[in-house]
Amino acid sequence: MSIFTKIINGEIPSYKIAENDNFIAFLDINPNVKGHTLVVPKKEENKLFDLSKEEYSALMDFSYRVAKALEKTIDCKRIGMSVIGLEVPHVHVHLIPIQQMADMQFMKKEKLTTDEFIAIAKQISDNFE
Amino acid sequence: MSIFTKIINGEIPSYKIAENDNFIAFLDINPNVKGHTLVVPKKEENKLFDLSKEEYSALMDFSYRVAKALEKTIDCKRIGMSVIGLEVPHVHVHLIPIQQMADMQFMKKEKLTTDEFIAIAKQISDNFE
Repeated sequence: MSIFTKIINGEIPSYKIAENDNFIAFLDINPNVKGHTLVVPKKEENKLFDLSKEEYSALMDFSYRVAKALEKTIDCKRIGMSVIGLEVPHVHVHLIPIQQMADMQFMKKEKLTTDEFIAIAKQISDNFE
Repeated sequence: MSIFTKIINGEIPSYKIAENDNFIAFLDINPNVKGHTLVVPKKEENKLFDLSKEEYSALMDFSYRVAKALEKTIDCKRIGMSVIGLEVPHVHVHLIPIQQMADMQFMKKEKLTTDEFIAIAKQISDNFE
């Protein structure tokens, strides 16, 4: 069972932003920048392009809505999107409010307090439509 | 007019993989790895999430088909996807056949000859459905 499935099942807590029957979005706890969010299908699939076309399209549509909420919440040049997945074998879309290329390289990390995570998650969630 | 619009208009040559009325896919000429492909909407929009939901969904669907062709063609662990866009203000989806995290960081680049670009583009194009 992946760490994301444990989050989906409520066995591990998360800073949740949005959820429906098929997807969940929550803050990355080791963020590149403030607001770095993961969008995850509840179905535990390893690779993005092993999702069916329908599952993939629904994941991308849900990610679009999360990105719009991020844009409204976090001051940034744009929202970057990345799907890699070499570390956790459960599809996850990174949505990252970026100012510079380094924010997309997963090398520079930002430290946030629990209170900051809670506040940011609430702000983004309030902007989710 | 962006460099990608010049490619779409045929003013600048490209190693083309697939094209329809709304999108084009061609090899990145400064690739992270062999097979690194860009998928671009013909409409010159700067930011991914400024596309309408319908335009965005169609771009993602076209990218799915290109990724499937890449998977069939290039030996890799998986196809990574990234949309950043800080350098060229015209939406482009990076599809990258990756072996390791470094292949997604846009720091390590691969040199290919013209003949190699032509051969790879043809192979991917032949696998595009």
